Amino acid sequence: MATVAQDQGKTLVAKAMDAVKNHIRVSGLHVGDALPGERFFADQLGVSRAVMREAFGALAALKLIDVANGRRAKVGAIDGSVIAESLDHALSTEQIKVADVWDVRRTIEMRTAALAARNATQIQAARIVALADAMGDDHPHDQTTEDDIEFHLAIAEASGNALFNQIVTSFVPLMRVAVPQAWMTRQTAEEKADILDRHRRLAWAIANRDADEAARCMASHFDEAIGALLR
Amino acid sequence: MATVAQDQGKTLVAKAMDAVKNHIRVSGLHVGDALPGERFFADQLGVSRAVMREAFGALAALKLIDVANGRRAKVGAIDGSVIAESLDHALSTEQIKVADVWDVRRTIEMRTAALAARNATQIQAARIVALADAMGDDHPHDQTTEDDIEFHLAIAEASGNALFNQIVTSFVPLMRVAVPQAWMTRQTAEEKADILDRHRRLAWAIANRDADEAARCMASHFDEAIGALLR
Repeated sequence: MATVAQDQGKTLVAKAMDAVKNHIRVSGLHVGDALPGERFFADQLGVSRAVMREAFGALAALKLIDVANGRRAKVGAIDGSVIAESLDHALSTEQIKVADVWDVRRTIEMRTAALAARNATQIQAARIVALADAMGDDHPHDQTTEDDIEFHLAIAEASGNALFNQIVTSFVPLMRVAVPQAWMTRQTAEEKADILDRHRRLAWAIANRDADEAARCMASHFDEAIGALLR
Repeated sequence: MATVAQDQGKTLVAKAMDAVKNHIRVSGLHVGDALPGERFFADQLGVSRAVMREAFGALAALKLIDVANGRRAKVGAIDGSVIAESLDHALSTEQIKVADVWDVRRTIEMRTAALAARNATQIQAARIVALADAMGDDHPHDQTTEDDIEFHLAIAEASGNALFNQIVTSFVPLMRVAVPQAWMTRQTAEEKADILDRHRRLAWAIANRDADEAARCMASHFDEAIGALLR
């Protein structure tokens, strides 16, 4: 029975994945630490190399291990790309709506702005102000989209919360599409100058350590600049 | 050169994954729709079945496709487990701290509570109230942890935002560990009754369509019941 055999295969792969995860946990390994090879786990579990290869492949896809460049497997670093893949798939298959993502981004980035106002180092705060200034005084330029994305990432990093930082990083592929679209909804020089001014006010709220004002600025940034996209 | 060969292999697998993702997007497929087999994509791209098998494995690990029970591959449903795997790994390897996760949960669940107050159907609101009541009046019981988790999930679902719902679902494995721990920090009958009362007040804020009060109740629930865990 092919179905039963594959069921057993799936269970074996799941067990093989668990063995690697347990090894990482029990050994107290960190990002970049070397892992034993497929043969080690295959022998330990009494499973075939093919099962173990499949398990390593699944763990690599989830970024739990890193096997880049054919090197020996290492403990993987989370980098936002796994959540980004889920988001992209869920949007393309209409499991979630674009408006859902904006609400999640707005909610999370109001908090990263408030935390950045509390936790940013002097250097992080200065960089956030510099990025807001770099976007332009009265009109956007070629580099504005990348500066805008860097600005949101710099705030997330300055929040001091590594999970928020990962989640905001996972939004970058969506930002590369949405940020230029949002700019296009701003037609007049006045509207463009207004968005640039909002970014600068947000940056200064963070630099001035005003968490409530930073959260308010981020909310109005989303409501005005991004809300226009959904209307 | 083994390294170069594996580099090329990796690039081919990434291209093979992209081909499947593009097929889903261009064909406008939805969850559960059947996909062509590995052979179709292998022929189309001119890659080996082994490369295509590896790509299907990675897509299945990310839940972009579903190959359960050895059936023909279908378009996968997001279910929170991918983010849950990332969270578990990031915690076990100390890439994120437990306190980071609590802040993310608090931020997100304040918003799901407010959205549930606005968007819950009559039936969803009644279920949220019933779950809060089921947790017990003055002392928790065997089923309280599961009722508590169901309560948070019911609020996320009632928010009407499918992405928030997925993110809260991804926290369930962490909740299964943390909820009993949080209950253990409450020693006296008075403290226990206080937590149960907080859940009921939150449920009634949602049923009464008071979004601000719902968000405030969720914040104080986290600050009191969960904050005790981190102290």
